[in-house]
Amino acid sequence: MRADIISIGTEILMGELVDTNAPYLAAQLPPMGIELQRITQVSDDINMLAEVLQQASQRSDLVLTTGGLGPTDDDLTREAIAQLVGETMYLDTQSLTHLQETFRQRGAAMPNANVKQANLIPSGRSILNARGTAPGWWVEKDGKIIVAMPGPPGEMHPMWETEVQPQLRLHAPGTVILTRSFKTHGLGESALNELIAHLFHLPDVSLGMYAQAQGVQVRARVRAQNNEEAQKLLLPVEAELRRLLGDYIWGVDDQVLEEQVGKEMTRQGLTLAIMESCTGGLLAHTITQVPGSSHYFKGGLVAYTNEMKIAWGVDPALIRDYGAVSPQVAQDMARSARERMGTDIGIGITGVAGPEELEGNPVGTVHIGLAHAGGTIHFSRRYPSQRVLVKQRATMQAMIELWNLLKGKRDEEAGV
Amino acid sequence: MRADIISIGTEILMGELVDTNAPYLAAQLPPMGIELQRITQVSDDINMLAEVLQQASQRSDLVLTTGGLGPTDDDLTREAIAQLVGETMYLDTQSLTHLQETFRQRGAAMPNANVKQANLIPSGRSILNARGTAPGWWVEKDGKIIVAMPGPPGEMHPMWETEVQPQLRLHAPGTVILTRSFKTHGLGESALNELIAHLFHLPDVSLGMYAQAQGVQVRARVRAQNNEEAQKLLLPVEAELRRLLGDYIWGVDDQVLEEQVGKEMTRQGLTLAIMESCTGGLLAHTITQVPGSSHYFKGGLVAYTNEMKIAWGVDPALIRDYGAVSPQVAQDMARSARERMGTDIGIGITGVAGPEELEGNPVGTVHIGLAHAGGTIHFSRRYPSQRVLVKQRATMQAMIELWNLLKGKRDEEAGV
Repeated sequence: MRADIISIGTEILMGELVDTNAPYLAAQLPPMGIELQRITQVSDDINMLAEVLQQASQRSDLVLTTGGLGPTDDDLTREAIAQLVGETMYLDTQSLTHLQETFRQRGAAMPNANVKQANLIPSGRSILNARGTAPGWWVEKDGKIIVAMPGPPGEMHPMWETEVQPQLRLHAPGTVILTRSFKTHGLGESALNELIAHLFHLPDVSLGMYAQAQGVQVRARVRAQNNEEAQKLLLPVEAELRRLLGDYIWGVDDQVLEEQVGKEMTRQGLTLAIMESCTGGLLAHTITQVPGSSHYFKGGLVAYTNEMKIAWGVDPALIRDYGAVSPQVAQDMARSARERMGTDIGIGITGVAGPEELEGNPVGTVHIGLAHAGGTIHFSRRYPSQRVLVKQRATMQAMIELWNLLKGKRDEEAGV
Repeated sequence: MRADIISIGTEILMGELVDTNAPYLAAQLPPMGIELQRITQVSDDINMLAEVLQQASQRSDLVLTTGGLGPTDDDLTREAIAQLVGETMYLDTQSLTHLQETFRQRGAAMPNANVKQANLIPSGRSILNARGTAPGWWVEKDGKIIVAMPGPPGEMHPMWETEVQPQLRLHAPGTVILTRSFKTHGLGESALNELIAHLFHLPDVSLGMYAQAQGVQVRARVRAQNNEEAQKLLLPVEAELRRLLGDYIWGVDDQVLEEQVGKEMTRQGLTLAIMESCTGGLLAHTITQVPGSSHYFKGGLVAYTNEMKIAWGVDPALIRDYGAVSPQVAQDMARSARERMGTDIGIGITGVAGPEELEGNPVGTVHIGLAHAGGTIHFSRRYPSQRVLVKQRATMQAMIELWNLLKGKRDEEAGV
């Protein structure tokens, strides 16, 4: 089964909104054996929208759209689909009742504009929206399926999970696509490519790699008639990749570094406290994205000034002698966070996020300290980029160093 | 001038990577008078890529691509463009020298794989990549321009800014597109729509609105032969929108709430300290995304346990009597952060990010306290969603309340 995804909204074409719906849906399709042909983003323009729908439905058996189902005058997805299949919309009384009920529960009167959200066409049925007013559309005509879902991710995700995906499974094809991704850190793209180049031209296996903030990701993908055959194709490649990349791998598939770290903290029964300067809260935010992180993360200090660092236990002599942006202060921040909050591990980060250099240290300079029962270590980096990226990369580096510490991969690093 | 954007990479179609390049480029085009027709995302498949390029170059005068310029075997953008224009690639010695020099400066040997990054076609010239190994391509043929840029945003952005955009300005068309966006908070999409419905059918002006985490954004867009005419069309609509939405507007165009707050803090010479629980560092991270925030942001505490809250000055009796997730504790966190760090304003956030409820409080419960010279106030919300969204929304709400406080818009709110 071949699919197209269409994200609809002038705000996307104007660059005002980053479309996260297409990536969400794209990730759902391979395990269902559905092959994504293309993602298209198009504005709320009835003619362009109709053209994109036309092309997508010629190319694919399944067209998934998000956006353009709102109550306002620039929401035109329903109109465009009706035009594509050549049908006239009518007011669906069941949808209207549900819509009125939704507003009643919110204790609000239903604005007139919302009435059009209860429109439907003869080939369609409406899909329940548990989180918002816009019902989706499921349209089947001439062997093609068109599914229209609302744009807000908070509405679209539950609609996909509870309504659309289960229905699509009934139409699922006989083939299966399996992928395995290895998330690595410590090797560049070219170096990795040379390590695994001989696997690139294997029959039945497609290999890909791409660089991201957490390191380079290597992905193997196979397609077969059933799960068993797909496994048979994937397993030897997977084993070979593990053999070649072993030490550089920190996770597979959709594993996220902070979750891997969290699992390892929990498994070892360890606790963590941090004091961060240039990352400004991003390290704490990253750690606490993990459900259950309160079991091992005790607290964080965002010490944006020297007085705060000192008030929270950093030795003023170190700041005086080495400067606030120094390996010594990073280590002392780690030590102090660990001691004051009584945890097994402490992390300290100090550096220069920009826009200006600090005490002669250029933007991008970052020192990371780790304090644990075995002593205190540090890592120094210089990132060649702007504020937002310095915060991101320094945070990622701190998580990688914590991971290495937990896995006993590294005991110390020489220096600056 | 009409344009298409193509983002290339199997990782995008597999849902493993969110494409931020297309929105970045999309936002650059309207001020240059370039009208974006469509954004397409396609995998590293030479046939699909060629088809998308073919369609885009038929539809548009300008095709911008990102991705697929890397050194690995699945990087095929150069090949697809060569195929589109029917030309054969040759090794460009100037690019090769530059490539070798880049590796020399990094103190690394150039892997063989990278040689192909120095390929070129007769209709093309290479574009300098100041941040990476892959040069871009600028191809002009049959009145069409195709510009291929690398995928990593850290390489693409500087290439666009210093090389591509200045060149494109020379081809700039005679028409100008102007937009004005108003960022609002406090009114729903339907309610806003009813307020401004009469403006939707104005000639020459296209109006749009969409809901996002920071509230609903309303955008007016005009197109004219020159800047003066465009201004003449836009100004009355802008004035009318300001009149209708006045109190709900917190910013315009690409203004970001944390930057607006930062400017206002600086203007009033105020300082800020925070203590956050359920947002886990995201509030501090958001505040410190702003360059220069160190001038007003003194520090943040991520108090993930009751002991930490108490160690940092929260009254244990309040936690005992009202629970850690209570308006009283939120206000005391704000008070304590303000007093301990000696700032003008303190913010406290406590709540339940999930996955489990806490002390009988359901997931999504959030209390925000603000302490300032005039006293202490609080706001309570209940967000109906999962961990990541609770953190985001609570952070955004805290920033909005801080904004309202700074603008003297609100003195207090009744209660839970």
